[in-house]
Amino acid sequence: MSLDLPAVIADITASMASMEDRGQVATYIPELATIDPAQFGIAIVTADGRILTGGDADTGFSIQSVSKVFALTLALGKVGDQLWDRVGREPSGNAFNSITQLEHEQGIPRNPFINAGAIVVADVNLGGHEPRVAIGEMLRFVRYLAGDDSITINDAVAASETATGFRNMALANYMRAFNNVRHPAELVLGSYFHQCAIEMSCRQLALAGRYLMLDGRHPGGGRVISPRRARRINALMLTCGHYDASGDFAFRVGIPGKSGVGGGILAIVPGRAAIAVWSPGLNASGNSCLGTLALEELARRTGWSVFSPPDEGD
Amino acid sequence: MSLDLPAVIADITASMASMEDRGQVATYIPELATIDPAQFGIAIVTADGRILTGGDADTGFSIQSVSKVFALTLALGKVGDQLWDRVGREPSGNAFNSITQLEHEQGIPRNPFINAGAIVVADVNLGGHEPRVAIGEMLRFVRYLAGDDSITINDAVAASETATGFRNMALANYMRAFNNVRHPAELVLGSYFHQCAIEMSCRQLALAGRYLMLDGRHPGGGRVISPRRARRINALMLTCGHYDASGDFAFRVGIPGKSGVGGGILAIVPGRAAIAVWSPGLNASGNSCLGTLALEELARRTGWSVFSPPDEGD
Amino acid sequence: MSLDLPAVIADITASMASMEDRGQVATYIPELATIDPAQFGIAIVTADGRILTGGDADTGFSIQSVSKVFALTLALGKVGDQLWDRVGREPSGNAFNSITQLEHEQGIPRNPFINAGAIVVADVNLGGHEPRVAIGEMLRFVRYLAGDDSITINDAVAASETATGFRNMALANYMRAFNNVRHPAELVLGSYFHQCAIEMSCRQLALAGRYLMLDGRHPGGGRVISPRRARRINALMLTCGHYDASGDFAFRVGIPGKSGVGGGILAIVPGRAAIAVWSPGLNASGNSCLGTLALEELARRTGWSVFSPPDEGD
Amino acid sequence: MSLDLPAVIADITASMASMEDRGQVATYIPELATIDPAQFGIAIVTADGRILTGGDADTGFSIQSVSKVFALTLALGKVGDQLWDRVGREPSGNAFNSITQLEHEQGIPRNPFINAGAIVVADVNLGGHEPRVAIGEMLRFVRYLAGDDSITINDAVAASETATGFRNMALANYMRAFNNVRHPAELVLGSYFHQCAIEMSCRQLALAGRYLMLDGRHPGGGRVISPRRARRINALMLTCGHYDASGDFAFRVGIPGKSGVGGGILAIVPGRAAIAVWSPGLNASGNSCLGTLALEELARRTGWSVFSPPDEGD
Repeated sequence: MSLDLPAVIADITASMASMEDRGQVATYIPELATIDPAQFGIAIVTADGRILTGGDADTGFSIQSVSKVFALTLALGKVGDQLWDRVGREPSGNAFNSITQLEHEQGIPRNPFINAGAIVVADVNLGGHEPRVAIGEMLRFVRYLAGDDSITINDAVAASETATGFRNMALANYMRAFNNVRHPAELVLGSYFHQCAIEMSCRQLALAGRYLMLDGRHPGGGRVISPRRARRINALMLTCGHYDASGDFAFRVGIPGKSGVGGGILAIVPGRAAIAVWSPGLNASGNSCLGTLALEELARRTGWSVFSPPDEGD
Repeated sequence: MSLDLPAVIADITASMASMEDRGQVATYIPELATIDPAQFGIAIVTADGRILTGGDADTGFSIQSVSKVFALTLALGKVGDQLWDRVGREPSGNAFNSITQLEHEQGIPRNPFINAGAIVVADVNLGGHEPRVAIGEMLRFVRYLAGDDSITINDAVAASETATGFRNMALANYMRAFNNVRHPAELVLGSYFHQCAIEMSCRQLALAGRYLMLDGRHPGGGRVISPRRARRINALMLTCGHYDASGDFAFRVGIPGKSGVGGGILAIVPGRAAIAVWSPGLNASGNSCLGTLALEELARRTGWSVFSPPDEGD
Repeated sequence: MSLDLPAVIADITASMASMEDRGQVATYIPELATIDPAQFGIAIVTADGRILTGGDADTGFSIQSVSKVFALTLALGKVGDQLWDRVGREPSGNAFNSITQLEHEQGIPRNPFINAGAIVVADVNLGGHEPRVAIGEMLRFVRYLAGDDSITINDAVAASETATGFRNMALANYMRAFNNVRHPAELVLGSYFHQCAIEMSCRQLALAGRYLMLDGRHPGGGRVISPRRARRINALMLTCGHYDASGDFAFRVGIPGKSGVGGGILAIVPGRAAIAVWSPGLNASGNSCLGTLALEELARRTGWSVFSPPDEGD
Repeated sequence: MSLDLPAVIADITASMASMEDRGQVATYIPELATIDPAQFGIAIVTADGRILTGGDADTGFSIQSVSKVFALTLALGKVGDQLWDRVGREPSGNAFNSITQLEHEQGIPRNPFINAGAIVVADVNLGGHEPRVAIGEMLRFVRYLAGDDSITINDAVAASETATGFRNMALANYMRAFNNVRHPAELVLGSYFHQCAIEMSCRQLALAGRYLMLDGRHPGGGRVISPRRARRINALMLTCGHYDASGDFAFRVGIPGKSGVGGGILAIVPGRAAIAVWSPGLNASGNSCLGTLALEELARRTGWSVFSPPDEGD
């Protein structure tokens, strides 16, 4: 193996530090608008268990929509493929918070990674319980995946979203009219906003993503989900993980990934690596500006695109 | 290697023969409406040069939209990444012949695999020449890729599309109003319809697809395109290759593929295999019904999903 | 004058009694779903003060969206033409409860008679007060217009809408994200649902509509609104008063009118008559089936279409 | 009668001459782009036969979409109400040349005054003949209505549109795919572009519109269409005559009118007046800027809004 991964990470971290255009920090969640954009972190966990990091890899950030991957995993465990009666699996061709598509398709969101779809998933995970029960279960699940009980939820961020989340309230009520949200909207969103407000560092996030690299196995033993389901979640991350820039991410990076408006991206190279990058400035599509560039450079240096012959990589 | 590929192909071929629901043969191109739906073929060319076939693998069929892969390859060779100023790289969220998106996005098609995008690609490939020049170049290119000079164009199919292709004429004229089609619509479509009317067997189509499995190299020596470009075409096939069922195909099969309304699908497993399947009955999304099922079964048996760890496969 | 209006009304009432297809009673508001569809009423108040009635003209019904006319009149009195910064004046080209248009036009509803527009009007009328204040003001205004203090609000209907009004909750929250709804959605809708739940008979409704026939004057003396504003409200009723069937209503009837899902329609013949019809069965566009037919017949018999020479009428 | 119409016209003409913002001359038809925007004309024909004019009332201009009124009248004469199986009667909620709506509604245009609807009307009027036959019939019809055989078609304008009318070609082909255009698109548009290129002065246009003021009668005797049909055409002009500004025109002017991109507007006050105004500069909605202002002022001074009591007018 000729790939010097530590050197690659050092190069990328240095390269990102010199970038002038870092995008814009999300402002629609007031609590996030104050984050310093001059931060960048990266962490890679390899299939053989090495952990490599660069930059601000141990600084916590709001994982926001990256949480949709873990919430989907939980929901599939609860209701299995019946979930797909309520959520589609197609890229949306619209912005992350669009409501137009719901009207054309009778309240069925196109995929579980746009906000509408994630709200249905949160409705499934609520399962008749109080929001705090679902929130607790989600937090325990993420801690178990990462093997780290220090992961917490930032209540101020959750409260900030609750106070301003009118579009999500619109989405939830709209789907409730089609009976595709089954709990009161404020309960579903109470749970959803707390899930989005989970705080993790790049290191923690990469560790939490290992099961998707390992075909569903937990590195500590046992199985989180079946290989088929792990593969399918990876497929959804590739086709739908970056909102209306998913095609471009697949084109330029070629690795399944899920971004969040907090600036984090979780990316999975099946059989090889779970990667987390973070930089709070966003590009026009709402994905981390430096995070996307770092993953593009990483894919170029490692040959980890799923669209290359495997032996081109490490 | 424990994968017995001949047995897998034999099983799949037998399984497909017993299927009762074979979908509907496309009727909007009159010349295609008469094809017998009780046909199924499969051909796999592996990276080490083996050719394995099953069923009607040597029967010729109209490759239709599968030709968009070869046309895109040619156009990128002509104008390079400037092509992306005129065509996007995002899944469309609409039917293959939708015109709505063009109005919202100022005449720029979402990707080169929906009809509007393929018409722009045909406009690029026309390059100021007569349609017969562009058609000749396309045919020579496909013969070179497949290493088979017996491949021809079915003029009756091309004429049939010309007589009924009103939607494509609408798309071409609409984009011409935005100067994103630059030759007269009837010339662009003259070339486009002939490209779609190329006839190939599964064997020929799989052979023609080898360069995408081989990171851009021609198996006979030399390079068709750069590795980066090959990877990117594979990425586009995965995110956009099956119209508004691309997400579902990625979810269920997990292999880059491009379907055609003639019932053919070209699928690429990077570094491992180029696959062609064919069965003329289509499902509701306009993709080959049995072809899709056969590829799903093949991916399951071989572990060839790009979303699985590579060592799970052969 | 050769027009025998009592005979016309008698004929129409008899004709409606014999109709077999009476449409479907609205079911999405549970409290309305139980109304007997075999009812029809009509009341006409002429410019010279005659009141003519037919059928169930004194049975109360839920005026629902007809209330949007009175709410608009109130809101224009409060904020004047500034209202038009927040609501458009164009027919919508969509169903009454569509949310798609709001996304394309940045939270500005197309007109004050679709639900989204009426919710903005309710937000204006709320004006920082408690819903009960705005509700009280609206009820007093309608009583003043009709000269009838016995008009009341049906709290059961309002409660029924509150419990099931998820689409309206979605609309209100969606516009709040654009700051085009400025009070909490539940307060605005609390007021809006009570406004819709006003109960009136045809007689009362026709009386309440007199100011629009009289260029803004109250028949009891004084002025409700300016002539210019009365004319403009009539124009809005003609172009937008029947949701996505407004064009058809103008084409067939030719009289400004506003329909409600409770089966009522208020129609205004400027300078001549204020008309109320009611029959609870709705056609596919959500407008009263018999009510529309009755007005079409009335316009035919009287020559009251605003698109005919005035001397063709009475 | 206290209305001094000559003084009103003189005032309006003077007022328009002093306007600084005259809008933009349409540039998408090259032949129209060279017109001097500093022109304004008005002509009013009253029910009692007076003709009053102001400004450039005898300068010819391209009537463009105003011709849709005459073409609709002809088509209704040919196929009667069957026309409404192929064209709707609702305002479109979209720009005049939008194609989106056609996709959602299966090739049926929303009304006969948007381009798609007018193309269907032209297809009906073609009726299996050569374009020159239909063009000749249209020209004879307009001459008959105006009582003026000097009216001609500007072939240079027609040729200019033919060379650049890609959007119209797209619309025609798109509807042909739904069999709602039944002749080859180039023949239908050949006829349509010539109809649009009819040149008339304000005087001629007002004269041609008399039948719509007179409930369908030709002032020279005989009947052009039935009263019911005249009324309905007036209704369509009010709800759909100004593209996506029809609601605003009804709101501000209150008189049925049809505008054209050449800067002309034909407006009808039933029983009272046929009015033509012309000024080539267009506002953002594609309607004559000064023409609209002049009609608004005229309606204010005369009380001719169809939404006012008739006795408020002359």
